[in-house]
Amino acid sequence: MRSSTARRRATIIDVASAAGVSRQTVSNVLNFPDRVRPRTRDRVLAEVDRLGYRPSTAARGLRNQRAGAVGLELNLPTCGSDIGPLVLGALTVRAPAHDVHLVPFGDAEVFPTVAAYRDMTRRHLVDAFLFADTHSGDPRPDWLLENEIPFAAFGRLYSHPELTCWADVDGHRGLELAVEHLVASGYGTVGYLGWPLHLEDPAVAEDRHRGWVDAATSLGVAGPSGVTDQQLGPAVEAADALLDELGPGDAVACASDLIALAVLYAAARRGLAVGRDLGVVGFDGSLVARRHGLTTVVQPYEDLADHLLRTVHDQLLDGTVPVAGALLDPTLAPSSSTDRESELTSYTPVPAPTRR
Amino acid sequence: MRSSTARRRATIIDVASAAGVSRQTVSNVLNFPDRVRPRTRDRVLAEVDRLGYRPSTAARGLRNQRAGAVGLELNLPTCGSDIGPLVLGALTVRAPAHDVHLVPFGDAEVFPTVAAYRDMTRRHLVDAFLFADTHSGDPRPDWLLENEIPFAAFGRLYSHPELTCWADVDGHRGLELAVEHLVASGYGTVGYLGWPLHLEDPAVAEDRHRGWVDAATSLGVAGPSGVTDQQLGPAVEAADALLDELGPGDAVACASDLIALAVLYAAARRGLAVGRDLGVVGFDGSLVARRHGLTTVVQPYEDLADHLLRTVHDQLLDGTVPVAGALLDPTLAPSSSTDRESELTSYTPVPAPTRR
Repeated sequence: MRSSTARRRATIIDVASAAGVSRQTVSNVLNFPDRVRPRTRDRVLAEVDRLGYRPSTAARGLRNQRAGAVGLELNLPTCGSDIGPLVLGALTVRAPAHDVHLVPFGDAEVFPTVAAYRDMTRRHLVDAFLFADTHSGDPRPDWLLENEIPFAAFGRLYSHPELTCWADVDGHRGLELAVEHLVASGYGTVGYLGWPLHLEDPAVAEDRHRGWVDAATSLGVAGPSGVTDQQLGPAVEAADALLDELGPGDAVACASDLIALAVLYAAARRGLAVGRDLGVVGFDGSLVARRHGLTTVVQPYEDLADHLLRTVHDQLLDGTVPVAGALLDPTLAPSSSTDRESELTSYTPVPAPTRR
Repeated sequence: MRSSTARRRATIIDVASAAGVSRQTVSNVLNFPDRVRPRTRDRVLAEVDRLGYRPSTAARGLRNQRAGAVGLELNLPTCGSDIGPLVLGALTVRAPAHDVHLVPFGDAEVFPTVAAYRDMTRRHLVDAFLFADTHSGDPRPDWLLENEIPFAAFGRLYSHPELTCWADVDGHRGLELAVEHLVASGYGTVGYLGWPLHLEDPAVAEDRHRGWVDAATSLGVAGPSGVTDQQLGPAVEAADALLDELGPGDAVACASDLIALAVLYAAARRGLAVGRDLGVVGFDGSLVARRHGLTTVVQPYEDLADHLLRTVHDQLLDGTVPVAGALLDPTLAPSSSTDRESELTSYTPVPAPTRR
């Protein structure tokens, strides 16, 4: 015999009663499962499934009817970069904790334009946007402001110093960490290989360069510096030129893991064992670093994700914007490339000590 | 003076009338813009914007109220892999052409479980799912079938040979292409470095191995073979052992770009110039191959994306499933590592000829 409860649409009261808990507990299980003890949660979910309960959309606020959809532009540079997948992974994993979900979009264009944003808005697919690759002259903030669409950016909004809806890694602090670690590990002079200031993100390049200058100067270890773009071939040549000016026991701090890999190659070319003869630190905490045993400055991907998701959530909920942009501290992950007992060459890669 | 048209909510008839086109044309502009000439499209969109027209959700079928949301599991191996970002990029770019959009989700677990799928379903965030990393014993197909939720898989559904909702690259064909290219480029014996059959995806490992066996045997160039897991350190050791059994002018076909990179390192360790002394072909068309001048078998990411998106779209629309799974042909992208005029070593990487 089927009960009448099973025939009509089940309510939250039916679930609470069947599970012997309060309505608030049922609501917490569905919306904030971390707040509920596992045993209680399992009991409530068993009743939710048994009764076929579906929360009323009207009662779920921002969580209802797929509200809280946040468009995330995935252009080809993002997909093909070393850090794009790390940013995306952190945003994906952290989104539920902020009552939002991501909808990636993009076209085959390398440079972002507002066309794809306009299209997503016309199709009513999202309520807000997240984007990266901010740069001066970026047309996206203006378009989003004009259309009163909430957004947050991974990266400083160079052309809009008055805006606070961004989060970024403190690259200056990252290079300080790199230099301090190299000195503490017993290396001598510390050189730097970074990006030229004419690139799209001059502030990012300058920020990291300044961090090296400040730390190396104050510790009295400042050596030569060079610039290269983010391509392996040219970076190996630039690294080779920099190594001409360094001696055994010296070190190179780099603006990215790819540049650090290039230093590894340039060192191998001249028979230097990285670790023993030369210290190398990269930046990003990428797959490249993990694979090649590179010490690296790790971006705080989860904290960045939390800040960005909270920023769009709060704008959606009641229009609140942060009082300031968030410049978050990176951390240093030591590996073989700064271990003076290690003899790392480009053709004897070590497996990274821990796999994420 | 404001017209009455501007006061009440604009309809599709208002837009059609203002733009001097039919209602079907307005509908096409919003839903299938590729079917409409640019000049007409621009005129219609100008009226859409001017009149503030928003399509009625009731009239938009699968396109309405954010229907057609397809959950895409991004676990950490996916995000940290060489091909994950390429698959995601292709799915993102192709989704609009199939009237669906993606909602990535995942947790910090390495291995997929149904818990995250259950959660997405409970929250009513998606109508269907796409996933990769299929393997025998995978609990996801059973759970999705039980719950009558449409899905499609990138990778064969090993435990469900009766299911057709999948697409995969023809790895056998890929290794045939690699061997044929090496022979045509003038190399002698062709060895193979692949994955052991005890790994999660035995069929993928076997498929690629068989492709090498069949092509190399029929062309009379079969050489030694070896196995390694997908980690750079062990792969370099395995490559080194394989090179012991090969001579100048021979070649190695590999199951992945990472393994091919390991062959590059092992060759450099013994002073061989890849290209001139040794031919090397990878598999995946990844960033690693582009950066290191590796000839590689490129997976047909856009075709795979189109097939998977069409498969979930058709299931959502009327329950149609494909008559068979899709095994799609890869292509070969030649680069320096199979150019006998080239002298490629691990510490003289070349920039890839074209940047995607």
